[in-house]
Order: sequence, then C-alpha cells, then structure tokens
Amino acid sequence: SNKGISFTSADGDHSVRLRGSIQGDERFFIDDPSGSALNNRFDLRQARLWLEGRFWKYNDFKLMPDFGNGKTLLADAYIDLHYWNSAALTVGRQKTPLSLERLQGDTDGTFVERAYPTYLASNRDNGIKLHGSFGAPGQKTEYAGPIDFKNFATYEVGVFNGGGDNGAEDSYKAVADNKEVAGRLWLHPFQNSGINALEGFGAGVAASYVQPQNDSLSFASGALNLKSAIGQNTIVDYTKLKTGVSGIAADGEHYRIYPQAYWYKGPYGLMGEYVLSSQQLTGDAGRTHIKQDNSAWQIQASYVLTGENNTFQSVKPRAAFNPSKGQWGALQFAARWSELSVDKNTFQLLSASNSVSQATAWAVGFNWYLNNNTRLMADYEDTRFTGGAASGGNRPEEKAFATRLQFVF
Amino acid sequence: SNKGISFTSADGDHSVRLRGSIQGDERFFIDDPSGSALNNRFDLRQARLWLEGRFWKYNDFKLMPDFGNGKTLLADAYIDLHYWNSAALTVGRQKTPLSLERLQGDTDGTFVERAYPTYLASNRDNGIKLHGSFGAPGQKTEYAGPIDFKNFATYEVGVFNGGGDNGAEDSYKAVADNKEVAGRLWLHPFQNSGINALEGFGAGVAASYVQPQNDSLSFASGALNLKSAIGQNTIVDYTKLKTGVSGIAADGEHYRIYPQAYWYKGPYGLMGEYVLSSQQLTGDAGRTHIKQDNSAWQIQASYVLTGENNTFQSVKPRAAFNPSKGQWGALQFAARWSELSVDKNTFQLLSASNSVSQATAWAVGFNWYLNNNTRLMADYEDTRFTGGAASGGNRPEEKAFATRLQFVF
Amino acid sequence: SNKGISFTSADGDHSVRLRGSIQGDERFFIDDPSGSALNNRFDLRQARLWLEGRFWKYNDFKLMPDFGNGKTLLADAYIDLHYWNSAALTVGRQKTPLSLERLQGDTDGTFVERAYPTYLASNRDNGIKLHGSFGAPGQKTEYAGPIDFKNFATYEVGVFNGGGDNGAEDSYKAVADNKEVAGRLWLHPFQNSGINALEGFGAGVAASYVQPQNDSLSFASGALNLKSAIGQNTIVDYTKLKTGVSGIAADGEHYRIYPQAYWYKGPYGLMGEYVLSSQQLTGDAGRTHIKQDNSAWQIQASYVLTGENNTFQSVKPRAAFNPSKGQWGALQFAARWSELSVDKNTFQLLSASNSVSQATAWAVGFNWYLNNNTRLMADYEDTRFTGGAASGGNRPEEKAFATRLQFVF
Repeated sequence: SNKGISFTSADGDHSVRLRGSIQGDERFFIDDPSGSALNNRFDLRQARLWLEGRFWKYNDFKLMPDFGNGKTLLADAYIDLHYWNSAALTVGRQKTPLSLERLQGDTDGTFVERAYPTYLASNRDNGIKLHGSFGAPGQKTEYAGPIDFKNFATYEVGVFNGGGDNGAEDSYKAVADNKEVAGRLWLHPFQNSGINALEGFGAGVAASYVQPQNDSLSFASGALNLKSAIGQNTIVDYTKLKTGVSGIAADGEHYRIYPQAYWYKGPYGLMGEYVLSSQQLTGDAGRTHIKQDNSAWQIQASYVLTGENNTFQSVKPRAAFNPSKGQWGALQFAARWSELSVDKNTFQLLSASNSVSQATAWAVGFNWYLNNNTRLMADYEDTRFTGGAASGGNRPEEKAFATRLQFVF
Repeated sequence: SNKGISFTSADGDHSVRLRGSIQGDERFFIDDPSGSALNNRFDLRQARLWLEGRFWKYNDFKLMPDFGNGKTLLADAYIDLHYWNSAALTVGRQKTPLSLERLQGDTDGTFVERAYPTYLASNRDNGIKLHGSFGAPGQKTEYAGPIDFKNFATYEVGVFNGGGDNGAEDSYKAVADNKEVAGRLWLHPFQNSGINALEGFGAGVAASYVQPQNDSLSFASGALNLKSAIGQNTIVDYTKLKTGVSGIAADGEHYRIYPQAYWYKGPYGLMGEYVLSSQQLTGDAGRTHIKQDNSAWQIQASYVLTGENNTFQSVKPRAAFNPSKGQWGALQFAARWSELSVDKNTFQLLSASNSVSQATAWAVGFNWYLNNNTRLMADYEDTRFTGGAASGGNRPEEKAFATRLQFVF
Repeated sequence: SNKGISFTSADGDHSVRLRGSIQGDERFFIDDPSGSALNNRFDLRQARLWLEGRFWKYNDFKLMPDFGNGKTLLADAYIDLHYWNSAALTVGRQKTPLSLERLQGDTDGTFVERAYPTYLASNRDNGIKLHGSFGAPGQKTEYAGPIDFKNFATYEVGVFNGGGDNGAEDSYKAVADNKEVAGRLWLHPFQNSGINALEGFGAGVAASYVQPQNDSLSFASGALNLKSAIGQNTIVDYTKLKTGVSGIAADGEHYRIYPQAYWYKGPYGLMGEYVLSSQQLTGDAGRTHIKQDNSAWQIQASYVLTGENNTFQSVKPRAAFNPSKGQWGALQFAARWSELSVDKNTFQLLSASNSVSQATAWAVGFNWYLNNNTRLMADYEDTRFTGGAASGGNRPEEKAFATRLQFVF
C-alpha cells in the first residue's frame, strides 16, 4: 500500500500501520552577497518512522517520532477514543487546532515550507481535545480521525499546555497553571448539495486563548523566532533585544483568530487563511509592557497539469513513473502570496536591526509526483522585507530556490 | 494480539514483535497557593515504539527507545542468551535488579507513578547479568526472560556501570574503574504446594554495592534529585547546596538492601518493599564527608471490583468496553502508603530550605481497563513533608490529582 | 530471515524490511595507573531500529536512527532512485564515499572499532550523490544499492554539506556556501576473469575537496577530536589549545586521498587503506595559519578457522550454535596494524601535552559467530604514542581489551 505496511486482524477491529518518510532538501540563495548568513545547504527536513492504527474498533492511536533537522522530536503521540462520532476524545501530543495549512502533513503540502500564518500558531502540544463530526443532512457521518475533512461539519475544542507563536515545545507549561484553550469549527457547506462546483469548498474559523504569567522560557532560547518561509532564515529574533532590555516574557492574555478556507475542484485548488495573534509581552525587567498584535495571511493556487484530482492531501498520479511504458507520473504547478506584519510595539523590546516589521513573499512551485510515494519538488520564493537591517534600513530581498526529494509510505 | 504485532517463522524458532505505548497524563494540584512551583500540566510520560523477539530459539532481545517527557532515551537494549534456563546471560542496557516495583512496566503498575522505594534504586544501566530460574521440586522450569515471575526460584546477579539513587544515566561510569554489583533472589515458596491461597505469594531480597571515587557528575545536573511520587515535583534537590558548600560528589561505598514481596489471590493484590540506601558523600571541596543513610518503604493493596484476576502485570478485562453490548471493561481500586526518610547528615551539604528530610504519602486510585490495550487511571495522593521550607519550616502538604489515558500493544 | 522482517507485495515491486541491532560492549585497560582517564566501562555502542525497502521497483530507501552511546542520532535517511543502474541518484543523509572500512556496517566489521584511516574521513552527511555500476565485459549489471560491491566497476560522486575529519554532524554547513565534493572509483578487476584466486580482489580510490571559510564550529565542541581505536580514548584534542591560542577554525582548502583495497578468498581475508587528509587551519584570532597534513594507514588480515567463506560483510556460520547437536557456530581470527601521523604544524595551535603526534597500534581479535544474527567478539589492542604528555613526554602505552555481544536482524 502507499500508506504504510498494514496489519489487520481477521475481524477487522484491530489494525496497525508501520510507516516512514524522508525529505531530502537543498536550498540555495540567489544574489546573496558573500559573507551573508544565507547559507546554501542540504537539509534533511524530515525522517520519520512511525506507527498508527486502531484497536477494539474505536481506539485509534498515532506514535510518530521525527529524526530530521539534526535532532529528535516527538511529533504526534495521541490516543483517540471515538465510540461516538459526535464526541470523540484525543489525549496526548497532537496538532493544536489552529492553522489550516498546519493540518496538511509535510508530505501533503503544496510547497516545501508552509506560509506565514502557520508560524503564528503553536505547533504540537500536550493536551486533551474533544471533537465531533456530522454528516450533511440525510447523510451518514464517517469517522475521520482527529483531523477531519470528510464530513459536513466538524468541531474541535481542547485544552493544552500552550505554546507561543511558532512554539512546538509546550512553551507555557513550566511556569504557570494557566492552560491554553483552542478550537476550530469547520464546514463543507455544499457537501451533497448538488452544486458540483462547490462540493470541494470548505471554510472555518479557529481560535485560541491563554494567559501566560511572566513566561520567559521560550523567548530566550530562540524557539519562538519567526523565519522566512522557504528560505528558513530567522527574520524576527527574540534573542536580539533592544539596548537596555534584558529579557522578554509573555505576561498577560494571548489570543489568536484564524479564518480559513479551501476549494478543490478537479485539477484546481485554492487555499487561504488569515491570522491575528495578539500577545502581551514584558521586557526590561517588567518596566516595559506591550501588546503585540501580529498578523499574517496567505493565498495559494495550484493546478495539476496532468489532469489528476487536486486535493487538500496529496495528488495521486494515474500511473507511476516508468518511461519505458510511456508513464511519467503527475505534474502540479502552484503559486502563493504570503505576508507577515509584526506590530511596531515589538521594537520597544527587540532590536530593529535584527527583526523585520514586514515580510511579503511570492512563490511558485512545481511538484512532480513520480508515484504515490515519491515526489520531487522545486520552489522559488522572493521575499521583500521592511526593517531588519542596521540604521533603520531594510533587510535585503531574499531569493530562495529549494528542491526536495520526498518519500513517504 | 494485545502484545504487539507478532511475526513468527514456520519452525517457531524465530519471532519478532513490534510494539508501542503512549501515556497521556494530566496532573493538577489542589490547595496550591498562587506562585508556587506546583504547576498544573499535561505530560506525555511515555511514547515508546519498540521491538522484542527471539532468534534461533535461545537468543532473546529487546530494543526500546522512549520519546516521552520531551526527550529521547534508550530504555532497554539487551540481548539475552538462554540456552540453559539455570544460567542465562543478559548483555546491554537493562533494568538493574533492585526495586520490585521497577520491574513492573509502566503499563503494568497500579498507580500512575511508582512509590518512594523505587527512587532509591538506579533505573536502567549498561552491564552484564547472569540469571537463572528453577521450577518447584518435580516441576518443569519455564523460560521467562530476564524478568522472571513464573518459576519457583530465580536469581539475578550482574555487574553494571553503576548509577546513583534515581539515576538512569550510568552516573558512575565516567570517573572511575569501579563498577556496581547488584542482584536479587526471588522465591514463590508456595508454588505447587497445594496451599491455594498462597500460590501467588512471592518474596525476595535485592542488594547492590559500588565504590564511586569522587564522582560529582550526576549531582550537579540534578539527575539524582528525588521527587514526590504522583506529583513529580523535586523534594530533595542536590543542586541547592548549603551556604559554603561548592559541590557534591559520591566518594566511598554505596550499598542498598531491598527486601520485597507481593501476594496475589483472585481479585486481591498486595505489594510492598523496603530499601536502605547508604552512600558516602563529600562536599565543600572534600572537607566535609558524610555517610547518608536514606530509607523508604511502601505497601499497596488493590482489588478488582469486576472480579477479574489481579496480577503483578496487568488486569485483563473479561470483555472490551462496548456499551451497546452491555460491556464496560474492568475496574480496579487501589490504596498505597509510602514513606521516604532522608538522613539528617544530608543537611551538612544540602540547603535545608530546598530539600525535605521526610515525606509521607497516602494515595488512592481507580483503574478502568477499557480493554486489553487501553486503560484510564485516576489517582489522588496526599504528601506531608518534614523540612524543605525556609527558616526550618515544613514544605506545604502536596495534594496531587492525576489522570492517565494509557495505550499499549 | 537474518536480514530483518520482510514484507513484499505480490508483484515483488514493493518491499519493506524492519530491522534492528544491539551492541553491548565491555572495555578494560591493562597496566592502567590509578587515577588515569582510561576508565573500564560498559558501553552500548549501537542500538538501532530501522526500515529499508524498495517501492515501485526503482525507489529504494533506508531510514535508520541510532539510540546507542547515550544519545540519538540519525545514521542513514536516504532515497535512492535507480531506474538506470549506470546513473542512480541518492538523496539525503548517507555515508560519504571516502573510507573503505566505513562502508562495512558496524555489524560487518572484523574488529569492534575501525582503524585510524576511517577517522580522517567524515562520517555521514547530507547531500546528493550520483552513482553507477557496470558488470564485467559480457556480464549483466546487478543493482546493488548505494554501497556496491557486487559489480565489476562502480563510481560514486556527490556533493555534501561537508564534515571535518571524524565529523558526523555536517560540520561545515553552518557558516559558508562552500560544499564538499567527494567520490570513489572501485574495481573488481578480476571478476569473471577465470583467475579464481583473484575473483575476490577489489581496489579503488576515493577523494574529497572542500574550502571551509573560517569555520570554528566543530573544533570547539570536540566533535572532531581523534580517538584511539579500540580504547576509544581521545588522543588528539582540538579543545586543548596551545597557550595564547584562543580558538581554531578550518579556513582554506581541505582535501583527502584514499587508496584502498581488499582481497577475499575462501576463509582468508585482507583489507587495507591509506589516507592523506590535508586541511588549512587558523588559530590565535587568525594570526597563525597552518597547513595540517595528517595521514593514516591500516592493514588487516583474517582467517575463518571453521572454514566458512570470509567476506567484506559478515561470516555466515554453516550451522547455528547448538551444542546438543554438536554445532558450535563459526570462529574467525584476525590481526591488524594501524598508524596515525599528526602533522607537526598542528602543535602551533594545539597543546602538545594533550595531543599525540603519532599513534601505532597492533590488534588481534577473535569473532565467534553463534549464528547469522549473534556474534561474540573479543579484541586486544596495544597502542604506542609519540607525544601527548607533559614536558614533551609520550602518552603511556594503551593496552585495551574489549568484548562485544552483537545482535542484528
């Protein structure tokens, strides 16, 4: 199968899949003056070996470590109890229900890296989530796991340790009792409506709320720094402070709002989302207190040149690459516009020479699906910055070219 | 199977099992004054994906990394050569033969966390262990792996790098040639005796001896700190020293004695152990030298309300949770008393404001076995301390409530 | 199978193997004066759980984390596209094509640790490699994966982030655009020649070139330190600098040349390689600039006493250990001579008291193959040093005895 090696019990109630993925990247930067920090490099962005499955018909699990990026992380480790489709419980380490693009697995996404809105959400977090699915009126509900894009309506609401923007390490857990509440409501409003063109349209909104108390943990380590998308170079650096500021902490309410939507029809695909992330920060030993309203949005369009269906997950080529049989796999073209706005209050705490206040990026990409398991990606992204250089100047335009050979089963 | 996906060769001589486990915890603290270090939190206490098996009929192995707790550890990695049941050899990383409760896998234990005696043993260690099993007179001996609770008599004796109390990282290996010797003798004295009530009674004694030489490694890192059981908050802190003391090292003999026993009969279970851990410590650049005799004991009782058999390993419900068939799984109730005494000499080296001299805890717990693979646990533990606060005061009582959803296959 | 649990699709185009390995070592040092840094110890040198396989007939992959040595590393994570045997592409993390002995898996090598030449190569690295195989004239070419010892001629040439000598962590990637080019040409000149005695003779040459720019990263961390072979004690320490030198960086060209050969015939085996690694180093804030020409060579011979075939990979015993049937497995004897010469320019930067200028080692070893999966190794190595002690003296002779119980499937 192209979804792992699968073992299923005779009665079908128990099954386990053994899976793996590898992503070998290469990035290089054009017009990059010598001596700059934009280093051409080979990255191993993902190396996962994982188990997922179902026991006793209603207990799903996923257990997925990642050995890529020169370190070992636990991406997912959750149990999902789903005796009732309308009220299932996911316990453990999981994706927080915020960014839409985050829901795409790394092997499903259209570009080698996600756009800016995803980086204003936390990534994975430990917690408990209640979620439910509902079929369109008169239709059956189908179990779809904690990430549900099959049914008419889906809700997710959970309590998590809480992580700052771009945080994946349970950033807020260490110093306070306050936990983060996050949730999403998602609809396929035209599912089974008979309006064929709109069957594949989905829209929703996600949000989160938490009140960290004087939490400096993840700022000092740089874990919450923001990066350019495809180039993956730091553009907002919470470790480079304004002169006189000795440390940053999250202190006070932090909320996010995420309207989001997609639309897939035949070979065409469209996806977009917006986020406002508003957090209270202190610095300068508590003497400075700011409200930082960062925002980001993106819109991306894609087209499968070889005619296969475009989807939120991955394109499945009609036939695997085999030139001797005249088979070449599937080819997809994509374009994306993405912007990040950093609140100007930020620069009461951070050095304006090291962090940008605005990033605007356009990208184009080609995806060649050799077969259901192997994909070759080639992306180009051009990013323009406001601020981020010495003496109030702008950080130089970043022109990043990246390729990825990706294998997943 | 509920013990992993199993692959066996046609002749039965070779088999491999692929297994996994996830533990999603939640802890919160009652009557916990604001600003305290007792943070309510979600923990991912275990996330394991492992292999175990047998080759050529007599070569067993286990290879078990753990991705939980925000880090990656190698729990077990050993080879067991057992051509003779009476003299088998285990080589590699393994549990040191000391605490009885440690022998229970995390997925077998009755409470979400082990009691104090376990924390005065080292955890896993690299070494070589000779072990053997003997059936009751007139009975066959059955191979039972390095952890043997099937036979009449079992011995284990091994040489290890050595680890300090609560040490899992081969603490003593780095600075001296001296290795730790540890062993256990275990009996089921009434096995096949005809006295039915005592068939499930087992008792034994374990001990260890090592002479570390001026080893400061694991004290400074806090790896040897002792914690409250279910709350998992530090209560003896080797990194908070008395004024004037600049560092601590283990220097001189360190021995432990561990009498231990259990008794299972139908739905009833009883387990207890005691430990004396005596180590020599130096501090203050060698000017202070103390003998620290710490001790701990625990006793726990449990009862399976739904009538299934109670065992040292795990309760197997008669039928999996399925309300539509009137099946609800198994329910177990448990209670535990546990104490830790820290030698008063300790406070010649450690700050008495940061480390307690005594901890006394009682706990009750409910375990709901939804099926052979999934268990929901809910525990409450109340711990009272002597010392550990400023000006000779007592650390406030800790009231910890914890739940765990656990999945293992 | 003795090569993992294998799953193959009905048409044979897809297959995955689940594999594992464990190495439990013990080392001790003879005539080692009390207080020395040569600590007797138990090591867990390897603990791997990995996947490898083939999809769509022409896409191979390997995904192999290692949990040994008290840390987690990603050893291999690559995809190999091999539609054409003469031009296949390996993308991701892989062995750099340099040292011959490095190509032997840890479970294939004849001694518990590799000899000096391997340590003057980098280990694994992220990059892209083109490679191809060619059968002897008139013979078919057989696909053999990125490490090919089956065919008449093989070439490999790749671009990698670059790693310093003994570097496994992409040492040069962080501070410069310059990448490392490395390659190997390998021949079995007498394959299918009819000269039976020389059928198993192979020879080749490997080389690398890179120009790091002021890269100090891996020197300061000690990652590039050189060690004695079987004893695994540091003998060239890049963190112990000459008085007045404040830091070391690689700056300028770094090239290596590696002639290498082996010869296997029946129970006899012979292997040897030489390396010159020439790198430019700066220290003393750039005021000192040296060219460091280090070299190493080794030759090893082995003989299978029980008559099985000797190979570059591993000896397969005729019958598994089972004394009751009079089967004892296979026994191999081996001897090795190995030398390392450190350029005297080195001591313009490093402290001569902490790093040796010359190491000469002889070793003998016995390997007892209990079966195709389990091996017990016992090695003794005697190493003599020039320099490396205070006041211009020589570091004391190192007499290391090591055993390993190794299991792989």
